[in-house]
Amino acid sequence: LDSGRLGPVKRLVNTLSAAEIGNLLESLPSAKRQVVWGLVDAEDDGEVLVHVGEDVREDLLRAMDTDEIVAAAESLDIDDLADLFEDLPDTVVDEVLKSMDRENRERLEQMLTYDEDTAGRLMNPDVVTVRADVTVDVVLRYLRLRGELPEATDHLYVVSRRRQYQGRLSLAQLLTADPAVAVNRIMDADQPAIDAETEVAEVAQRFANYDWLSAPVVDENNVLLGHITIDDVVDIIRDQAEHQALGAAGLDEEEDLFAPVPRTTKRRAVWLGINLLTAFLASWVIGNFENVLKQVVACAVLMPIVASMGGVAGTQVQTLMIRAMALGQVSASNAMHLLRKEMLVALANGILWALTVGGVALLIYRDAWLALAFGAAMVLNLLAAAFTGVFLPLALRRVGIDPALAGGVLLTTVTDCCGFATFLGLSTVLLVR
Amino acid sequence: LDSGRLGPVKRLVNTLSAAEIGNLLESLPSAKRQVVWGLVDAEDDGEVLVHVGEDVREDLLRAMDTDEIVAAAESLDIDDLADLFEDLPDTVVDEVLKSMDRENRERLEQMLTYDEDTAGRLMNPDVVTVRADVTVDVVLRYLRLRGELPEATDHLYVVSRRRQYQGRLSLAQLLTADPAVAVNRIMDADQPAIDAETEVAEVAQRFANYDWLSAPVVDENNVLLGHITIDDVVDIIRDQAEHQALGAAGLDEEEDLFAPVPRTTKRRAVWLGINLLTAFLASWVIGNFENVLKQVVACAVLMPIVASMGGVAGTQVQTLMIRAMALGQVSASNAMHLLRKEMLVALANGILWALTVGGVALLIYRDAWLALAFGAAMVLNLLAAAFTGVFLPLALRRVGIDPALAGGVLLTTVTDCCGFATFLGLSTVLLVR
Repeated sequence: LDSGRLGPVKRLVNTLSAAEIGNLLESLPSAKRQVVWGLVDAEDDGEVLVHVGEDVREDLLRAMDTDEIVAAAESLDIDDLADLFEDLPDTVVDEVLKSMDRENRERLEQMLTYDEDTAGRLMNPDVVTVRADVTVDVVLRYLRLRGELPEATDHLYVVSRRRQYQGRLSLAQLLTADPAVAVNRIMDADQPAIDAETEVAEVAQRFANYDWLSAPVVDENNVLLGHITIDDVVDIIRDQAEHQALGAAGLDEEEDLFAPVPRTTKRRAVWLGINLLTAFLASWVIGNFENVLKQVVACAVLMPIVASMGGVAGTQVQTLMIRAMALGQVSASNAMHLLRKEMLVALANGILWALTVGGVALLIYRDAWLALAFGAAMVLNLLAAAFTGVFLPLALRRVGIDPALAGGVLLTTVTDCCGFATFLGLSTVLLVR
Repeated sequence: LDSGRLGPVKRLVNTLSAAEIGNLLESLPSAKRQVVWGLVDAEDDGEVLVHVGEDVREDLLRAMDTDEIVAAAESLDIDDLADLFEDLPDTVVDEVLKSMDRENRERLEQMLTYDEDTAGRLMNPDVVTVRADVTVDVVLRYLRLRGELPEATDHLYVVSRRRQYQGRLSLAQLLTADPAVAVNRIMDADQPAIDAETEVAEVAQRFANYDWLSAPVVDENNVLLGHITIDDVVDIIRDQAEHQALGAAGLDEEEDLFAPVPRTTKRRAVWLGINLLTAFLASWVIGNFENVLKQVVACAVLMPIVASMGGVAGTQVQTLMIRAMALGQVSASNAMHLLRKEMLVALANGILWALTVGGVALLIYRDAWLALAFGAAMVLNLLAAAFTGVFLPLALRRVGIDPALAGGVLLTTVTDCCGFATFLGLSTVLLVR
């Protein structure tokens, strides 16, 4: 379709939602991407920019002139705009700030004083507030005068004269309450507020723990700044999941599928380089056993099996550990319990597979000592794998490294080295004479 | 604490939310778990059961008698109850159904006619409906008479006399609209309904694509059955992320951290067995080159490096592909583009690392032919890894296998075999005389 008339494509593209257009743009090579980007209605530009990854966003912004970017930014809600601000050129930022009314500008500037990845940046400052001492009837009349409520409003917030948070009132309560009753009689004063400096990961955890649908955000003086709704939390959860899945392979979740080859090469090279160092370490271990390798060529044939089984078993344990740690289920008191359990599982599986591989080795090479070395190394390496799988993530966390990112490479380094060393070491003892 | 007086523990446990208690129970070994479970207030039992994984739930249910389970089940909302029903003993199911009023029993039975993992099971049937031709004022008076609204109500649904879905009305609109206006003048008729048989993954995708906060669920005759709110979608997204992270290591996300050793051993053994088969395949490849291994022991030392680098590079490509496929960003039309890009990246990185490892090999072994074989094998294996990383997930999807689950093992099998074959093959040609 893209290689011909653009009219039908334009019509098709503009039936899509902003998220779908973003998805489409991410799936196109750079040249076609620019063509389709040109076809998107100008009024949707802002929303689409919010829905694409950082790399693609830069690519799209490069094709726009300042006026277009300013127009796109002006069409956005304040919380989306705050999201985008880091990536916009300074001239655009100034223009956009100038074009806003004073209230919104102050709100935005306040949001920008908080770090990215904190509640203060995630929140939506657009909330409706009421006073505690008025009646429901007054609130209802005020709302009708006010007209349309901000998007995602599910509660009104009850604040003091100095805008300090006192409680909240759901729209459902407002609709069912006796109009004569005062707000402070029916408001929910139990809903805790989130401090604006709270990290978003902690925010997501609290929403999950308490089944919240929304929560107010306050500053250090308990002054209401805005609220966070569960749809914001969905984005955090999705980002966390991607970060974990991609991070384990040394990838950045903002990476553009069609980034230019040199940039991609450079990024990938870093991870390959780290892996090369660990691979040379395993290789050095093997190099120490040249003697047995020269005499018993079967050792070279079988050694990757021991290493690989250790890697798989260790990865299983470590994956469970990392998940349990993320859920806050692992502490010093149960780590020893877990270790004992995993060591027993490794022992049972080690014996099972030692008998299997030992039997196979005996059949092929007709050498009982080789089979013994093979089987014993298998048991030892699975035990080492279980031990590493339990303790490596705990150790990494202790020193402040995310185990989900670095754990995989380090674990397989341990299981490779240990697998090669035990098998070749045992073979040296049992087979070399 | 657990090894002494239970009073303070009981008080502490019952200050926690159901999700936190569930988390705590999951982090305890089985014996302590039963002790703490006994301390939980009976009225929270149902909610806690909803918040734990299947394995732990079975463990907890085993310790309860029928009356306790019935009481716990009765305290739940219908949608949570539907979630739990599969795991409850038949006698309990009958008791619970008997204890419900007719309306709720019919709703529950209807939900249970839909498959697990469909919108019909995920939805909450507790919605408030109104007619299109009444005025806002009538609706307001009706709501005030009715009293409390069901949890998570953000819209009323407008239905025909035969309960067919026609549109919806947000609580915010109700509060700000002119009371004299008719519902059909202000209702949102554009919000599409979800068919009850839609898979939950598709439901999550639509919520993401259109930034929905809630959506109505209808049967095949457009009759309103209930609604899905974004907090239900959060659970799906979290489950999907866990499924992917744990599935790649051959683990089940419902698995209990403290499952008994025999059960865990059996489950882990399956994945280790699959891996053993693929490891023997790689080993068989090596076995075909015994000749060169006997003559040049350096080949045995260096060969794991080639295999390992291929595995890492291939995993990077495959991880990106699987993510892009999950987002619907990969089709036949751009797969070739992606392949070309990834092959170029692999070539560039291959040459870089071939020069590095070739140089190191030359320094250590002072053998130009060995260095050449090592470097060339590196380039070839990285190219094979990129090719496999792009096409393997596409092929797996074509034959109906989830690439996130099976992809990792298969990819490393290919890169191992290819790495060993190219390096040992080239070494045979260049070094054996």
